[in-house]
Amino acid sequence: MARIRLTLNELSAGVLSGDKAILGRAITLVESQKDEDRILASELIREILPFTGKSFRLGITGSPGVGKSTFIDGFGEFLIKSGKKLAILAVDPTSKISGGSILGDKTRMEKLVNQSNAFIRPSPAGDELGGVAQKTFESILLCEAAGYDMIFVETVGVGQSETSVKEMTDFLLFLTIAGAGDELQGIKRGIMEMIDMVVINKADLVEAESLAKLKGNLIYALHLFPEKTSQCSVNVFACSSLKGDGFEDIWKSILNYEEKVKSNSFFDNNRNQQKVNWMNRSLQYKVLNFFYQNAEFLPKIKKYEELVIQNSMSPIDAANQLFELMKFK
Amino acid sequence: MARIRLTLNELSAGVLSGDKAILGRAITLVESQKDEDRILASELIREILPFTGKSFRLGITGSPGVGKSTFIDGFGEFLIKSGKKLAILAVDPTSKISGGSILGDKTRMEKLVNQSNAFIRPSPAGDELGGVAQKTFESILLCEAAGYDMIFVETVGVGQSETSVKEMTDFLLFLTIAGAGDELQGIKRGIMEMIDMVVINKADLVEAESLAKLKGNLIYALHLFPEKTSQCSVNVFACSSLKGDGFEDIWKSILNYEEKVKSNSFFDNNRNQQKVNWMNRSLQYKVLNFFYQNAEFLPKIKKYEELVIQNSMSPIDAANQLFELMKFK
Repeated sequence: MARIRLTLNELSAGVLSGDKAILGRAITLVESQKDEDRILASELIREILPFTGKSFRLGITGSPGVGKSTFIDGFGEFLIKSGKKLAILAVDPTSKISGGSILGDKTRMEKLVNQSNAFIRPSPAGDELGGVAQKTFESILLCEAAGYDMIFVETVGVGQSETSVKEMTDFLLFLTIAGAGDELQGIKRGIMEMIDMVVINKADLVEAESLAKLKGNLIYALHLFPEKTSQCSVNVFACSSLKGDGFEDIWKSILNYEEKVKSNSFFDNNRNQQKVNWMNRSLQYKVLNFFYQNAEFLPKIKKYEELVIQNSMSPIDAANQLFELMKFK
Repeated sequence: MARIRLTLNELSAGVLSGDKAILGRAITLVESQKDEDRILASELIREILPFTGKSFRLGITGSPGVGKSTFIDGFGEFLIKSGKKLAILAVDPTSKISGGSILGDKTRMEKLVNQSNAFIRPSPAGDELGGVAQKTFESILLCEAAGYDMIFVETVGVGQSETSVKEMTDFLLFLTIAGAGDELQGIKRGIMEMIDMVVINKADLVEAESLAKLKGNLIYALHLFPEKTSQCSVNVFACSSLKGDGFEDIWKSILNYEEKVKSNSFFDNNRNQQKVNWMNRSLQYKVLNFFYQNAEFLPKIKKYEELVIQNSMSPIDAANQLFELMKFK
């Protein structure tokens, strides 16, 4: 049985009043690929836009197996006890392959799942990262309008997903573990420049020596990078998500960060830049989609692909000729 | 004093005869941003296209400090002694920042620099990776037309540069070293799926135990990935580039690979797919450039950026409205 379609007013009033069920349906709307849904979603975002922006957006990344769910469950409960309203979203470029496991099994978050001040949303299934990330960005806005003042955005860090999460959050926390095989699941080059904090999870399960070694290595590596635009240093913490050890220090450090970036104006500048980037990426995405999903243009692309494969034309030449055919100049 | 501009015929005859000086000038032409140069470059590529494709294109990636230059110098000399004509190019997304150090100091390649069968070309300076990579792709074609049957394409593996190199080569060799701190400079997630071989360089400088451990870890990690489309397994070798130990085994393994992928048709399919991808990426690049470097359109983009920053419009909404303004439908 199809549910009754909510009107724009019902959606926007429901979201603004903090109704979790309606927030959930609003996010489903935002995630929808249907044209009529996209129009309503745009209208909804327009309505709630003045009520957005008043949260701290925390990105969390780390390889599978480092205990992201347990960390989010424990640290999330800690924040709710400190008075926060917490929404948890995910960017998962692998959701199509893995069947959407990221946050998919809400029962893994035992402490949060029944909290009235927690909202957990599994990752959207999507064809490709650009689209998925855009939906998550809009979901953040909806959660903020619903009164959530702390937003977690989780990712498994495959491919470009960390860049996407960095582009929609105020702070990127990198979760890792100490122990055997760490060389192989550790630090992706390119991520050191992005992260604002490293948390070594499951610290209770490893020997102090191995923990200290990893911590030392991380601190050394982090020092090799130039100072961040935020002017904040990247701290390394250890924690046990199951026991709740370490949350206090992590939270204090995040609060210090927030205070500093709000006073040195990095916070606002960064959010403004993010919005501009989202606009430009969305535009680029639309332009390219227009040509690559166009019944008139697609056969031309296919024709030139053949010429290129047969070595009758260089790829660059073919691109130039196709560009001329576009005739939008 | 400006050099006399070569004609299309002089360039194409010079390249096809293997004249190194003219090959160098042809690559400079391909790298040029000037419109008149771009036209001549296109004509040149068109002329030499039938004489391209007959090389083995070997991508080489690895962090700074693993000894890429020394490896290329030693392994390159080994190949020249085996009868190869070797061209060495680079994709360096950092060249703007670092001043183009990659291959820039040719004197680091002492064994190759005076070989008649070696051609070394420093990385082009460029604004952004897409453009730089396209120039390198065209440079490969020029080197092939000049008779080089082995092309090395080196990259430092920052950001997307490895993906670019993967997209223009037949085989991606990942160079690494054993030893302290290896966890931190080692394996970027996402790269394991891309590489066709791992070479542990400077093997003479580490203890056998530490070498064996790294080798074991690598082999274990590589086994976690599904079989490659090439149907070839990814082998791990150790070598000492200074002493020349290990080159023989590496070369045999590459030859086995070449033989296998040519018989199972992966080699041709992969090259065809690469050409199609290059065409599509070039087209996308041109389309986006058209709007972002357009005197009429750019002020509109700026106006919407302001609206987005002021929270008067959502980024997605702004993108939609800008898209409508494009009016190329």
